[in-house]
Order: sequence, then C-alpha cells, then structure tokens
Amino acid sequence: MSTEIPAATKAPAAAEKTKKPVNAQKQLKKSKKNESQFLLKTPKGTKDWSDKDMVLREERHGGVTIDTPVFELREILTGKYGEDSKLIYNLEDQGGELTSLRYDLTVPFARFVACNSIASIKRYHIAKVYRRDQPAMTKGRMREFYQCDFDIAGSYESMIPDSEILAITCEGLTSLGINDFKVKMNHRKILDGIFQACGVKEEDVRKISSAVDKLDKLPWEAVKREMTVEKGQLEEVADKIGEFVKVSGSIRETLGYLQNASLLADNASAQAGIAEMEQLADYVEALGIEQHLSFDLSLARGLDYYTGLIYEAVTSASAPPKNADELKARAKKDSKEKDVEDASEYVGVGSIAAGGRYDNLVGMFSNGKSIPCVGISFGVERIFSIIKARAAEKWETLSPTHTDVYVMAFGGGEGWTGFLKERMTVTKQLWSSGINAEYLYKAKANPRKQFDAAEKAGAKLAVILGKEEFPAGKVRVKVLGQGDDTNEGELVDSETFLEYVKDKLATYDEGGLGAVTRMVKNL
Amino acid sequence: MSTEIPAATKAPAAAEKTKKPVNAQKQLKKSKKNESQFLLKTPKGTKDWSDKDMVLREERHGGVTIDTPVFELREILTGKYGEDSKLIYNLEDQGGELTSLRYDLTVPFARFVACNSIASIKRYHIAKVYRRDQPAMTKGRMREFYQCDFDIAGSYESMIPDSEILAITCEGLTSLGINDFKVKMNHRKILDGIFQACGVKEEDVRKISSAVDKLDKLPWEAVKREMTVEKGQLEEVADKIGEFVKVSGSIRETLGYLQNASLLADNASAQAGIAEMEQLADYVEALGIEQHLSFDLSLARGLDYYTGLIYEAVTSASAPPKNADELKARAKKDSKEKDVEDASEYVGVGSIAAGGRYDNLVGMFSNGKSIPCVGISFGVERIFSIIKARAAEKWETLSPTHTDVYVMAFGGGEGWTGFLKERMTVTKQLWSSGINAEYLYKAKANPRKQFDAAEKAGAKLAVILGKEEFPAGKVRVKVLGQGDDTNEGELVDSETFLEYVKDKLATYDEGGLGAVTRMVKNL
Repeated sequence: MSTEIPAATKAPAAAEKTKKPVNAQKQLKKSKKNESQFLLKTPKGTKDWSDKDMVLREERHGGVTIDTPVFELREILTGKYGEDSKLIYNLEDQGGELTSLRYDLTVPFARFVACNSIASIKRYHIAKVYRRDQPAMTKGRMREFYQCDFDIAGSYESMIPDSEILAITCEGLTSLGINDFKVKMNHRKILDGIFQACGVKEEDVRKISSAVDKLDKLPWEAVKREMTVEKGQLEEVADKIGEFVKVSGSIRETLGYLQNASLLADNASAQAGIAEMEQLADYVEALGIEQHLSFDLSLARGLDYYTGLIYEAVTSASAPPKNADELKARAKKDSKEKDVEDASEYVGVGSIAAGGRYDNLVGMFSNGKSIPCVGISFGVERIFSIIKARAAEKWETLSPTHTDVYVMAFGGGEGWTGFLKERMTVTKQLWSSGINAEYLYKAKANPRKQFDAAEKAGAKLAVILGKEEFPAGKVRVKVLGQGDDTNEGELVDSETFLEYVKDKLATYDEGGLGAVTRMVKNL
Repeated sequence: MSTEIPAATKAPAAAEKTKKPVNAQKQLKKSKKNESQFLLKTPKGTKDWSDKDMVLREERHGGVTIDTPVFELREILTGKYGEDSKLIYNLEDQGGELTSLRYDLTVPFARFVACNSIASIKRYHIAKVYRRDQPAMTKGRMREFYQCDFDIAGSYESMIPDSEILAITCEGLTSLGINDFKVKMNHRKILDGIFQACGVKEEDVRKISSAVDKLDKLPWEAVKREMTVEKGQLEEVADKIGEFVKVSGSIRETLGYLQNASLLADNASAQAGIAEMEQLADYVEALGIEQHLSFDLSLARGLDYYTGLIYEAVTSASAPPKNADELKARAKKDSKEKDVEDASEYVGVGSIAAGGRYDNLVGMFSNGKSIPCVGISFGVERIFSIIKARAAEKWETLSPTHTDVYVMAFGGGEGWTGFLKERMTVTKQLWSSGINAEYLYKAKANPRKQFDAAEKAGAKLAVILGKEEFPAGKVRVKVLGQGDDTNEGELVDSETFLEYVKDKLATYDEGGLGAVTRMVKNL
C-alpha cells in the first residue's frame, strides 16, 4: 500500500551486500564536514531488510515452529562452539543474569528440548543468529544473519530421521528452483575410525578433523602441511589420511571402497558408521533423492557436537577450488577493493545448508538424559542471493506492495473539490471487501500524478471518480499497465462496482516470482 | 509433520505466562540438591514461543515490511525515551561500536527513514523489542516482546494519514474478532494549549503531561496530588486542568466543548489542534469508523516525541479504574501470590495498541531535514492473550501441525516386514504432490500406535498399506476422526490414490480458528 517506493526498494541492486550502501557513503562525506556528529548507519555487520528481500524468506518446512529468545543465559552457550566461542556477543552486565545473543539455532533448540522435557519433536525455526565476526560485507558474511533450521529430536529407528532431513534439504532447494546442488555427506564414526586406523592418537582426532574440514577451502598440500608442520602428525599418517579423504562418489560407490578398505576392517567405530550408511543408502533410494547425494570422505564439519551423519549442501558456485592458484584467483575476484595478501585467509561462499546428527547435546542440559537429534541449517541469505541473482530480471518488476486497485478522481474547473472524502469512502469499501486499494493523499491531484502513483504501486485497476459521473452514481474502472492510454475503461454502477472489480481481479494470475513466492510459503 | 506433540504444545495452558513453567519448578528443586549446576531456563523476562502461539501472530497490515537489526548504535537510542532510557539493554563493550538492543520499533524506523533518505513510505514491522524492566510475568510484561507497528512517513494532506492509521487500527482489531474496544484520542497541541491556558509554565508542561498520562491507572485525586505536592503547581491550576481532562465523548462532542471553552479561545496551540481535529472528524466519518473513537482530553501518552494526534486502543478489560478502591481490588485480584502493598505501583493490562504523530523524530537523525510520521504499535502479546482467552475451547483442538495424511502399514505374522521403506516411498509421493503427510518412524508398528500418532498429528486421512493389498497394487484410504472405528475406508489403486486423496482433502474446510488464522494472514 505504499504510495512511493523508497529508493532502497526500487533499485535493490544498489542495496546489495556487494556494495557499500549509497547513503552510508553520503553520510561519510557529511561526517567529514561535521566531525562531532556520529555516522548514521546500522551497526557493523548488520543490515536493514526491505520488503522485497523478505518475501522470499518466508520458507516453511512443515513441523511445528518455535521461537526462542534472542539471548540465552551465557552458561548455555559456553563450551559449545570451540574456538569460535570468542565470536559470541555478550550483553552488558547491568545487574542480574549474564546473557549472550544466540550464536546459532541448534544450541537454543537443544536447551528448549531439555528445558521442556520433550521426548520427541520436529521443529523448524527461522530466526537471526549473531556472530561477532569481522564482517566481510563483500563475501556475504554478516554479524546478524538469518538461519532456517529443521531438526528432529527423539529416539527412532536408526537413520530414518536422518534420511527425512536429507529429503527436506533436497525438496527445500529444488522447490526454490535450485537444482544444481550436491549434498556432500560423511559420518563422524567413519571419519574418526579412519583417523584412528591411520595412526592419529585419540587426543589429536578433533584437531586433525578440523584440518580435514578445511579441504573445501584449501588444497590438499595446505591441509597436509597443517597436519604435519602445525599439528605434529607423521608424514606417513597424513599420507594415509590423504588416501581416504580424496574418496568421494555415490553412497554405494564410497561404501564399496570402505567395505574393501582392509585398514578399517577391525575398526569398530568405522564399521558402526559403515553399517549406518548402508541403511541410509536403502532409505534415500526409497525417498528417490540419491541423485543429489555424494558420500565424500573429506567432509568433516567444524562443530564438536556432531556424533553421526554429517552433511553440507553446496551449489556449483561454491565448489572447492582445485588448487592454490584457483583459490587465489577466486579470492582476488571476490574482493575487488584490496589485493589479497594471504589467500589461505579467504573463505568463499561456502555451503548453502549444513547439519548433522548430534545425540549428546540435549544431554548436556538435562543431567545426561539424552535425546538423539538430527537437523539441518539453511543459510537463508546465501540461498536468497542465489535465487535473486537467477531471477534478477523478474526481480526488478516485482512490486513490494500488493496494491490491486488505485482510486482516483478526475475533474477540474469551477466547484471541483477533488473528491478526497469520496475517494476515502470508496477505498474503504474496497478494503472491507478484502481488496488492496490506495488513493493519493492530496485534496486535488491531476490525472497524470494519480496514474504515476498507481504505476509505482503496481496497481492492476484504476477506479475513477469523475466529476459528473460519480454524482450520477457511476464509477469508471480501467485496466492499467496495458500501454493503451486511450482506453477509457468501463463505466459501472457505484452500487455494483465491487463485484465488477472482483471479477476483473480474478482474471489475473501472478506467475513469475509471484508463483515462486507462493511456492516458498507453502514449503 | 510432528509425530508426537511435546507436552508444552499439547497443553498450552501449562505454558501460560500466568504460571511458572512446570519444568522451571522441577529444575528449581533439582538445583537445590546440586548447587553447582545452574538453573536451566530462558533468561528472566523472556519465554519460548511454541507453534500454537505463533500461528496467530502472523498479522499483516499491508504496506511494505522492513526488518531492522535487533541492535542499534547506542547513540541512536539515547535521549529518545525520557526516564525509561534506564530500561535499555546494552551489549557488552567487546571492542568496536557501542550498541544496544532496540527498545521499540519507532526509533529504528525513523533511523531507517533518515538513513535511506526516504521521502515517503508506509511500512509494517512485526518484531521483538527489549526492555530491561522488572518483568511481572503475571501481568503480561516481558523483557522481550513482540510489537506490530504500522507507520506512514511523508508529507501529505493534513490528517489524511492519521485517519488511515486509525482505520487500520479499527480494521485490525475487528478482523481479529475484537469488537469491544475504544480508540481514545487526544491531540498534543490541544493538551499543551490547555496546560498553558490553565497557567502551567512552559518548562513544566511535559512533567504535568506525564502526570495526566497516569489517569488511566490512577484516580484524579492521586494525579492532582502529584501535580501540586510533587510537581509544585498551584491547587487552582490543577483544578482548572481537572475540569478539562474529565471531558471525553465523540469527536464532535468534545470538539463542541473545546470550541466553547473561552479559556482556549486565544491559545494558538489549542486552536491549531482543534482545527486538525475538525478535519479528522470529517475523515473518520468518510471511513465509517467514528463509532470506535472517543476524544478523551485525559489521554497524554508518555513519550516525548509525539507532536500531534495521539491515541490508544483499550478493551473493556483495560478500562481505567473508577477510584482508588477499585484499583486496589483489581491489583489484588491480578496478583494472586502476594499482597499488594502499594496499589499506585500497580499497572494493569493497559492499552492493546497505541501511537501518534511524531513529526520531528526523523529530523533528529538527518540534520533537521524532517519527514512527518504517524503510526500505531499493536501489543501483539496482549491482543493475542485476548483472542486466546476468547477462543479457549477451540484452541485446545487446534493442531499446531498441518498434517493431512498419515501413512500406515497393517500386517503381521510370518514374513511381515512392516513396510517401512514402502511407507517412506508413499509419503514421499504425497509430499511431492504438496500434501502434508507423515508416517511412524518404526520398522514395525501396530495399528493402534499408528492411529494414535495420526490423531495426535491431527491427520484427516489415513493411507493404509495392507500386507496383501499393497503388493496387489492397492492402498486403503480411511477418513479419520469420525469416531467410527468399524469404517474400513476405500480400497483404491496405488497408481491413482493421489488423485483420490486430493479429492477427499478438498472437501475439508478448516473453519473455526483456522479461518481466523487465514484472516490474520490476509490482514
């Protein structure tokens, strides 16, 4: 119902993450003139969301939804994120409890399950999370960003919830028109078994796992150097690991490799993981999603709390660089403003969804009474930027408002009042019939200005109150946007115009992005 | 799609604000035994939202929506909330900018308008705001709570946007089934004019206004005492004010009183306000909402930034107490746990929506380049609790999930596999057709358990895979919830069952709260 679309929504490209907002630049110039005034902008690493952005974020993945507080007791978050704990935002101690902003939606979910003694739940949650990272606005990393999580908690038949989460991931992405994605999978028990079998000591397993985790951003040579030079593993241990982590393929292919790997034959952890992956292979075939999946032994995932299956959805845009040169070139391309000194610091677009099984997290909050959990986090902004880029053309024509009818008055000359009150009354009649309608907030306005406003609002029909026609009990209904200015519309009875307008509107189908929006809402 | 509804969503009454959550009590007992473990709960003054709660919060009032960061630069909030600034939540200084959680949605909106150099916008925003208040959980006051704001910024014909905001307020509430409300209105220019004309010095106007603002919670004697004893006004000044602030009625009635008030005849501020209220009287009649409005000279509103029309929607439940005794009795009734020592500290449910015109706020952020604004904040939780109380019976039957079909397997005896993979495949077919479906995550489950799970999920149909029937290419479709256990359903072809299921589902109409939900979503 906006009469004028603000600059930021009219030209969404100008407000993209890839550019410094125009107004921040203006402000910057202003503040040089007047040093005492502070720079007017959103805090570092945060941004405003305008309407067009929000339309596509209304995903729904079934299940119940919950909404937890934006801050949690600090102790709840402590010790859950390893090294990244330093990125947690603390609230100031103003007396009372110590609290921090949530870092993800998984730990609050586990706290929620424990807190309410829930035995089983499927829930989705779309909300903002907070990380006091050094925001690289050009790389899509923010301090405040949305995640959409779907998790299943409860004791169920082995690998059944896991396969459902994978189905939800695939359905979620394909229904958004993203088809060129792969869900890379691995299993923590297999990975840990490989490390053990290759000779990594128990206490080194997590840090070697964290080195392997970098294979999506760094070439093998760099990861091997981290294992040997920085993390003290023997060259032959690293080389053995290297043999395993280069294996990827369909579930059946990688399973075949693992079943024949004599090094793992006696490793209990690896064999337990292999048995679970065999079950999973059956289930993803039943669900018909196996073509999207790849079983990739290099996938490790950073967080400590995963205990079983782990996965990460990547699009072709986020495929790992083949070697150091490609990495460096890519980093350089993405960071237009400065030269890239240290390419190993560079983090690409990364995964668009990721998750895994975490069977022990709820137990940390409930005196050890554990509830098995498995879940997926969609990176809403990343997915959104892919959709937006692909639909760029249609995007421009998408009106952020949903005005169907614009109510106008035509007249002039002596005794012309502008029909302001009459336009209000007619608009109210449309509102009361559930029709989105607007009128210009001016006592007298010329037809050109009213048509311009109607166009900006994306109105489909004009209802026109003519100086002579309206007092005679008639209004004119004109179809807009047909590039035919000579078309005068239909003169209809004021008593029955609502029915006429409804019939006219019923002939419209949104199509294009409107259809996408509806699809997302129904997900 | 949840197979088992958690206790918290099954029995929403147990999770009400009026009770301490059962689990917090359990935790409290536990923590006495084990002092070293911290109390597991959400932070003081915050709560978890479960699905049933969220269904009704999806209001839409047209316009574009924006979503601003949950924290703002501290300087943006400073000096906007008067005495209540002490309630602002600060983030810890961990290096970098000083930030605070937003206190309302109005100041971030004004910052947004200024920041993006917007000339005009209509926006709605549904989001949480933060006040480090002493939460009185029994009185519906939280530290984190939702507001739904609708604002119009831009230079328009006088009182036109104001009357549209009033129409939105009335429509919003009536469409939620709330009809017994009044929107009390007043005008800051009239109020200030009255204070001047009664002999209040310019520098005392705001604090006397703040005393008058308490008339919705305190009887006149208490307010008069505050004006004279605490705020140093002469008794005769207070008495003159007292004559004005007891006046309320329809817009035309109160206007008539003001037009005849000789004390105001020469007061420029009051006359400017009266002229605007005369325009408004015309417009609200054109919009057909005058029956909901009352022009009440005792309404003052706390915030300093209002410059013109102010208003507050109250229901019969939040009418002001007639005298000190009624106030005390009401306070006592609402606070069951402790005796009320000082009734003047008591704050009732209060308004369910409030707002006004604030023409100078944007200017504070843009070097004085002001954009006139007017808006309304709906108190989402308060409105929600009214709806919930009125719909209590239907509420219990409202399923938080939207499962339409439950896929089951019946069989047993030798060679019975439980059809787990087959149930997955059939469920996936339903998902792919856009139908919400579930199945039990057990390899073999007896019919009773499957029917119980279907009932919990609120499923309308069961699709049953029989041990002999399914291999013969047939599934059984049974209508659920008809209390007729002998009904065996229809045996249909596996190839065409999707069409059959769709046709069956098409005959259902949600009705009741489902209809309310749709209405709210379309608002």
